[in-house]
Amino acid sequence: MTKITMNHGSGGEVMQDFISKHVTAHFPKMNFSVPLDALDDSAVVDDIVFTSDGHTVKPLFFPGGDIGSLSVAGTVNDISVMGATPLAISCALIIEAGLEMDIVDRVMRSVGETCASCGVPVATGDTKVVDAGAADQLYMVTSAVGKRSPYMDHNLEVASQYRKVDSKWATDNNVRPGDSIIVSGYIGDHGVALLSFREGYGFESEIKSDVAPLNGLIAEGLKTGGIVTMKDPTRGGLANTLNEWCSKSGIGMEIRENDIPLRDGVVNACEMLGIDPLSIGNEGKVVIACVPEMEEEILKTLHSHPLGKNAACIGHAVASDVPRVIMMTAVGGKRILEPPTGDPVPRIC
Amino acid sequence: MTKITMNHGSGGEVMQDFISKHVTAHFPKMNFSVPLDALDDSAVVDDIVFTSDGHTVKPLFFPGGDIGSLSVAGTVNDISVMGATPLAISCALIIEAGLEMDIVDRVMRSVGETCASCGVPVATGDTKVVDAGAADQLYMVTSAVGKRSPYMDHNLEVASQYRKVDSKWATDNNVRPGDSIIVSGYIGDHGVALLSFREGYGFESEIKSDVAPLNGLIAEGLKTGGIVTMKDPTRGGLANTLNEWCSKSGIGMEIRENDIPLRDGVVNACEMLGIDPLSIGNEGKVVIACVPEMEEEILKTLHSHPLGKNAACIGHAVASDVPRVIMMTAVGGKRILEPPTGDPVPRIC
Repeated sequence: MTKITMNHGSGGEVMQDFISKHVTAHFPKMNFSVPLDALDDSAVVDDIVFTSDGHTVKPLFFPGGDIGSLSVAGTVNDISVMGATPLAISCALIIEAGLEMDIVDRVMRSVGETCASCGVPVATGDTKVVDAGAADQLYMVTSAVGKRSPYMDHNLEVASQYRKVDSKWATDNNVRPGDSIIVSGYIGDHGVALLSFREGYGFESEIKSDVAPLNGLIAEGLKTGGIVTMKDPTRGGLANTLNEWCSKSGIGMEIRENDIPLRDGVVNACEMLGIDPLSIGNEGKVVIACVPEMEEEILKTLHSHPLGKNAACIGHAVASDVPRVIMMTAVGGKRILEPPTGDPVPRIC
Repeated sequence: MTKITMNHGSGGEVMQDFISKHVTAHFPKMNFSVPLDALDDSAVVDDIVFTSDGHTVKPLFFPGGDIGSLSVAGTVNDISVMGATPLAISCALIIEAGLEMDIVDRVMRSVGETCASCGVPVATGDTKVVDAGAADQLYMVTSAVGKRSPYMDHNLEVASQYRKVDSKWATDNNVRPGDSIIVSGYIGDHGVALLSFREGYGFESEIKSDVAPLNGLIAEGLKTGGIVTMKDPTRGGLANTLNEWCSKSGIGMEIRENDIPLRDGVVNACEMLGIDPLSIGNEGKVVIACVPEMEEEILKTLHSHPLGKNAACIGHAVASDVPRVIMMTAVGGKRILEPPTGDPVPRIC
């Protein structure tokens, strides 16, 4: 008898296969602008952008953040990368009986502070308590609603000066050969910080989670214009984002390994731990595909924002019969960057 | 050091006090039509009706329903009782590693069937897997978005023929002295069915959960007109709903005990178990406050719908210096129906 394993929830191909066969397969079909089947960052229902994220990170508090800031940032980012403005979030708690009230207060204070920092309030929520032992301290599911960004029309007009754009949203199927691929900063920090802190490897003195709401940074990018899609590379990391874009857009990619922003500490930690920094989750980064003519302008905009100052173009989309990511390695070779089967580190978000 | 107890999540006064002091107190204030502070069934953000509900029911399958039908119905109902039409729901899962895939399939099939039956699709979702022992099989958080019902204008116009109506939504603060209080059917079935099934008391052969999406029934009520507010009496039961209305609307109520629809089996079971049927959760019932002039018409409408055929008027709102519910007892006496401190039965939703 098949049983659920950690891999079914860890991003990547095993999870996508599980979701499509055992979850969405049972649901009625619908006719939304961006439906469930798209498995994009958010759905779009009658021009309402709508998303939901469960958070089971362990431990609740970690270098650079906690489950509160993580939940708000993750949900705000899922709305924002659609080319939308988040309006409000909901916060549903599942708490284990026996948890100290002080921990609830600290987490909720962090939720409140993160909401205040990004200007997106909590509008509704729910609280359930389960018996001691039936949850691991506290789980949080945040959902959010948003509306199309007021800068999205301008953004797509700029892109349309250079090529045809098919979607009014920044959806995963919107990348075309020639598009530039930009990441907004260092990759891998969140996963390495979490793993190191949890297991006591000591790298966490150097590496902190990058958790941050990106709605402000993304709005600046849209004001500049020329962005065709965006994604926050959470579970499954950058490798998953790039491969998802290839398969949903029917393209290939050529990525320059040397140009991916990676901290030395992350590279060293990943080598020691035997994990790939491109397959682990980020919580404050956005990957952007834009028309190549606007690449330089967009990088300039990102560099002038505190959350984008290490942004870099890492390669381009190319025409390809098979959807795959070719990595031009540091030593001058080529390899295929496979989609990860799952995030190598469980419960980091 | 204060710790979380089951009562903090069980509806009623302990939970409301906990939420306001340790959860919402930390969140930034906002200026929505129906804000978080209202602690109503849903929030209203820029005319988007938005709600979220966590579900930790134990066991996952019970007489009359399961966590899948319960989640969809509960969330659809929270949108509907605002005077809104649910457009789509999200479904976030937290699954314990080791759970049989067959159980996931059964729950998701139930989600799909319930969605199809009420015409509200799943638009987005998320799946997290936690280690064996870190959750009790499967938890589900459903959120939903909705828009104001197309029948709400007509409904409030009818009410306005008889008295001033202050809100364009069916909010808890909208009841006025003289309003009729209607329940849509038998009270207490869900809680008693769950408790009995779980503990093996045997009443469950007779009593099934009432879990049902009420958007269809509620739309019929709004088409008739004269409804000023609605609520689904879940955690904390009818006693909690009536007391919340009294305190948020600044009124009192006189309720006729004899007129509350209660199955003999529920009364007998509650007597044996020492619990109050008015304090336990329902999952397919709506309590309606309407202008008294429309009471008869609304009852006629409810009676002609399968989910409202046992609807009854149970009393009226009255002017009162203190917000309290006076129960006119079966034997001709009077007592105060206190707000429950919490649902007497844990993990029934």
